[in-house]
Amino acid sequence: MSKAGTPHKVEAMNLAADKAAGPATGTLMALDDLLTPALVLDAARLHTNARKMRERAEALGVALRPHMKTAKSAEVAKAALAGAKGKGLGGVTVATLREAEYFLDHGFRDITYAVCIVPKKLALVATLTAQGADLKILTDDAGVASAIAGDGRPFQVLIEIDCGEHRTGVAPDSPQLLEIAEILGRGGNVTVAGVLTHAGHSYACRSPDEMAKVAEDERAAAVAAAARLRDAGFACPTVSVGSTPTARYAKSLEGVTEMRPGVYLLGDLYQAGIGTCAVTDIAASVLASVIAHRRGENALLIDAGGLALSKDRATQALPEDQGYGLVCDMRTGTPFAGVKVTSVHQEHGHVTADAPLPFEKLPVGAKVRVLPNHVCMTAAAYDTFHVIDGQGRVTATWDRCHGW
Amino acid sequence: MSKAGTPHKVEAMNLAADKAAGPATGTLMALDDLLTPALVLDAARLHTNARKMRERAEALGVALRPHMKTAKSAEVAKAALAGAKGKGLGGVTVATLREAEYFLDHGFRDITYAVCIVPKKLALVATLTAQGADLKILTDDAGVASAIAGDGRPFQVLIEIDCGEHRTGVAPDSPQLLEIAEILGRGGNVTVAGVLTHAGHSYACRSPDEMAKVAEDERAAAVAAAARLRDAGFACPTVSVGSTPTARYAKSLEGVTEMRPGVYLLGDLYQAGIGTCAVTDIAASVLASVIAHRRGENALLIDAGGLALSKDRATQALPEDQGYGLVCDMRTGTPFAGVKVTSVHQEHGHVTADAPLPFEKLPVGAKVRVLPNHVCMTAAAYDTFHVIDGQGRVTATWDRCHGW
Repeated sequence: MSKAGTPHKVEAMNLAADKAAGPATGTLMALDDLLTPALVLDAARLHTNARKMRERAEALGVALRPHMKTAKSAEVAKAALAGAKGKGLGGVTVATLREAEYFLDHGFRDITYAVCIVPKKLALVATLTAQGADLKILTDDAGVASAIAGDGRPFQVLIEIDCGEHRTGVAPDSPQLLEIAEILGRGGNVTVAGVLTHAGHSYACRSPDEMAKVAEDERAAAVAAAARLRDAGFACPTVSVGSTPTARYAKSLEGVTEMRPGVYLLGDLYQAGIGTCAVTDIAASVLASVIAHRRGENALLIDAGGLALSKDRATQALPEDQGYGLVCDMRTGTPFAGVKVTSVHQEHGHVTADAPLPFEKLPVGAKVRVLPNHVCMTAAAYDTFHVIDGQGRVTATWDRCHGW
Repeated sequence: MSKAGTPHKVEAMNLAADKAAGPATGTLMALDDLLTPALVLDAARLHTNARKMRERAEALGVALRPHMKTAKSAEVAKAALAGAKGKGLGGVTVATLREAEYFLDHGFRDITYAVCIVPKKLALVATLTAQGADLKILTDDAGVASAIAGDGRPFQVLIEIDCGEHRTGVAPDSPQLLEIAEILGRGGNVTVAGVLTHAGHSYACRSPDEMAKVAEDERAAAVAAAARLRDAGFACPTVSVGSTPTARYAKSLEGVTEMRPGVYLLGDLYQAGIGTCAVTDIAASVLASVIAHRRGENALLIDAGGLALSKDRATQALPEDQGYGLVCDMRTGTPFAGVKVTSVHQEHGHVTADAPLPFEKLPVGAKVRVLPNHVCMTAAAYDTFHVIDGQGRVTATWDRCHGW
């Protein structure tokens, strides 16, 4: 959006193009009419990814609280939570207070902010709570717990547990766990809502068996911490775990109340590389235009570079290094075999291949779609999803939040 | 900005805090009152960087057309162009049409869009031109030149020259150069505005002598191409070169009319690493909060991760690998020796050091500033610069454009 709150011109042209079309008019717009770069969302893939994870949650007997840091979109959250059964809907998870505010503005009240809080952010948490948010915050620090307890305003606090990633969180058997709970418990208006852990090290796994093992470590750490809190007199209603790999391959979540996978909704080449989805499940891609040919070097340039694709190189660690993304046919979203973005400048992507590039199919001005390495990073650059059907026609425009 | 165009709450709190302070009231706000992560701009450093480059342009006898893809800010552009002498002001350079629109909205009419155009974008170029932009576009392709010539609307076109980076552009001695000019020349409403080249390979240089050599290659390529066009009857008024390393170390720009450096305005650790600025010249930094300690591992976590800092790892190629950024004292901006962000998650930055970290100075909730690896990538995540004076007090808030 522009400074004045009206869409800027590229956005306005793309929005107008989307709106002129749409299922209602029966004249769906083609991707080729969008200005590039733009973020595209395949609705059928999204809904399939969403349904499969709801079925996983149901089978595992836990609520699903999808992590919305990837999609940052209310419409995607609705797709994620549509028709959940079993333990039903656990609300949403967010990674910033900006996301918390956005989802509250879009009617989501049950929100967990799953990054350790600092005292300066409590005023905003209190404001959002006063506006109706059922907002849970996180800490692993006794000093912060003291600040929360001493604040006087009502807060619901989860204690973060380290289940092996060693990023944030206290060990489930540590004295700090009870110390933090006791400090929080002394705050008259503070609820110890439970425990939360994230097995981020599951991303380093390379097989379903390894992911199942990390999932069991994740479960066991959260359940053990909850048991200690209950023994000490804290009800600990929430026992929250989750990452896409562990949610996909956990064998049991006994004792857990909810899981918080996120990237599964969109998928990316890293997730495909470690086996939590197939390349054909990836729902988000970047629409780009061919801006130059370098036939002598069997290369071409597109107008999606480091900002449009992100500089994430996660797949570098995998057997199949996907560069900065895999180049696909605009309409079908099918990869051109072996055609990758292999280097980027700010607004230029350099596309190469081992076999001769299909220059005739891709003249300057033609469009392609690029599957992202790490969709959380790539999508963050965009304010809008252009939603497409199976024929590559734009059926809707969904907003996203961004920044902090 | 929120969907409704009003600032969202984090932004509103930060803007209100900025506004409550300000030079007029004499009660400048401290950085410690901002919510994090946030982008900080040291005004004194910016103005010094801007002045030095104006002096370079004056000494070299060329106009300065700063590339605004880095700062994406009208106020920074004003700082860049303030009081230019010699050949004076060359307007601004942009890397997206979104930036072109933003700068036009902020009163900058003379704009060069320095990424090869595609036919689908001509409608927006025409719209901006009709609204008063003196907008120059770029091509290196005969097919695109035909589309421009055949469009019928008035366009000013620069032909891109490859001076050795081999990204986009035609070789100065290639038949394509004259072919493209002749095709453009047949368009009744099209002006062949001149030639433009970018020595992006200057970033791979490691010494002033190497940069001076690339600068001479850049100059020679542009001047040779312009000479061929003039011999063929094209006036070729613009001969445009530029990158920060070549602008900094060029010995002569004879025959060149303007230069387009950009990153020099803010600086970053990569530029410091290759010697185009000092670490103490870096004007942009990310304000972050300490969110957790891991004393046993001599590590701490901050709330600036892959989105807030970018995943750019440019300094990996340099003798001093700066990780994802160098951690500095919040107020002075002075680096804590050897303290770096060495890994990132989406909203977590993992800070480590060879020597013991200053945990007592940096309790959970304390703030730091992080100098960026590659400021073009880092700044792109933010809508706002919080401008500070030499005492680390916030004196103004400057908007930035983002997206496409």
